[in-house]
Amino acid sequence: MSKTKAAIVGYGNIGRFVLEALLEAPDFEIAGVVRRKVTDIPAELAPYKVVTDIKELGHVDVAILCTPTREVEKYAAEYLAAGINTVDSYDIHSSIVELRSGLDKIARDHGTVAVISAGWDPGSDSVVRALLQAAAPKGITYTNFGPGMSMGHTVCVKSKPGVKNALSMTIPLGTGIHRRMVYVELEEGASLDQVAKAVKEDPYFASDETHVMAVKSVDDVKDMGHGVNMVRKGVSGNTQNQRFEFNMSINNPALTAQILVAAARASMLRNPGAYTMIEIPVIDLLPGDREELIRHLV
Amino acid sequence: MSKTKAAIVGYGNIGRFVLEALLEAPDFEIAGVVRRKVTDIPAELAPYKVVTDIKELGHVDVAILCTPTREVEKYAAEYLAAGINTVDSYDIHSSIVELRSGLDKIARDHGTVAVISAGWDPGSDSVVRALLQAAAPKGITYTNFGPGMSMGHTVCVKSKPGVKNALSMTIPLGTGIHRRMVYVELEEGASLDQVAKAVKEDPYFASDETHVMAVKSVDDVKDMGHGVNMVRKGVSGNTQNQRFEFNMSINNPALTAQILVAAARASMLRNPGAYTMIEIPVIDLLPGDREELIRHLV
Repeated sequence: MSKTKAAIVGYGNIGRFVLEALLEAPDFEIAGVVRRKVTDIPAELAPYKVVTDIKELGHVDVAILCTPTREVEKYAAEYLAAGINTVDSYDIHSSIVELRSGLDKIARDHGTVAVISAGWDPGSDSVVRALLQAAAPKGITYTNFGPGMSMGHTVCVKSKPGVKNALSMTIPLGTGIHRRMVYVELEEGASLDQVAKAVKEDPYFASDETHVMAVKSVDDVKDMGHGVNMVRKGVSGNTQNQRFEFNMSINNPALTAQILVAAARASMLRNPGAYTMIEIPVIDLLPGDREELIRHLV
Repeated sequence: MSKTKAAIVGYGNIGRFVLEALLEAPDFEIAGVVRRKVTDIPAELAPYKVVTDIKELGHVDVAILCTPTREVEKYAAEYLAAGINTVDSYDIHSSIVELRSGLDKIARDHGTVAVISAGWDPGSDSVVRALLQAAAPKGITYTNFGPGMSMGHTVCVKSKPGVKNALSMTIPLGTGIHRRMVYVELEEGASLDQVAKAVKEDPYFASDETHVMAVKSVDDVKDMGHGVNMVRKGVSGNTQNQRFEFNMSINNPALTAQILVAAARASMLRNPGAYTMIEIPVIDLLPGDREELIRHLV
């Protein structure tokens, strides 16, 4: 069986964990890592090609995008048009449909596949949400996050002028309501008020109660554990009070990376186009013989 | 939009709840009900055709099989060959691969689709199990059932000579180990020992601790609530101790029926063949516009 050649694009938090997940996967080989700069290469990348342009890696089946969310579309569009599948963990829920429709056209035109928003939420949580909706079509699903660090929100805060380092913690208040606790290390002379205003006005934060605080060292308060508590009470047929609950307590970038690698695997089995996780059979996320998987998992 | 014409085959516990689920579904109409006899028709079936042969119903898109598990293969083979999709909640885990492969050939030969083992376990639980395996490839998933009535096990006990009525309760002992508590109403002159022996030797019960007791009235001890507690602790990449948990507390036949109807919907979107639930994108289980579903669920 020939292995799937995967490139890691971006080598921050998620990129590091994608490397680990690829090394554990029986069906992948690492084509190389794409970074903005090829100086200061971490020791663990010594065995791999580290380049600034994916074309330098030769044949790549799938690019695993570990860039900030807002750079996903640009990289995906470029790679899909160059004949490379892409997967990403794009996490701005309100723009997923638009990202999918834009990338879908490019992917179809070039015979490639994009699996988008393939982290844990959006991602594996989305699969559970859709399944619970099918199991009890009437009712409400509450997804409660945390307490834990939101990587997407943290990257967003870091991008604001005057911010040297940042941490955005998600605090569950129940019934899907969350508080954002934002800890920032300010640059010399930066104004906390101006940073707080910029954060609160960002679409990432606009709909949640948000508190922005200055700290001396973000590293001292950082913990990458996270959690989810998803609850649905609903109606199957006309039988009320069907209750479902899904809980996770996980290392956030490790799970994101693992789902990205599973989605990269699934991308090799799809017809050209762009897909979210709920459009992919879960069996395609797994390596190995399909009848064996069915025997053990169904 | 033209509605999908569904036939209900068998009108026991599950069949009744399938009728209710179909009546709540916006995209189905009820072609009729197939029963062994058309005498003693319950009042709620007055508006529908009740027949002994599905051919009497005219055009049927999909047959929802609500027969005992051991009759599923016979009916599915017949209907698939007659151009009708089938869905079932076949629940003998050890024979699912064989059922799938037998029905797959018939379905492909006749341009039809079978969705098999589409209840809650096997069924919706299988989707969660496969998803958790993708999220943390190394580790163990324990599926703990109950306390609750197992319909498949109960039907099995009822089929034994000397048994007038029966109830098989599943008791979770943790780490996927279960006790079967079987309550039987014996026929005049039947031997409890012989019934107990027949039950314990059946493949349904052979691998579990099983206790068989005689009661005066099974109806007096029957409750169709059930539960699941699925737990996985595993490794994403090489990050240990990722924890996942899925819990349900549900009316058993109501959920089985709801999943069957969702699977019937999905059967209309597949290429010919036989599929388990983990081979179907969860979005196909849901009615409505796909972009709207993605907007709300992903």
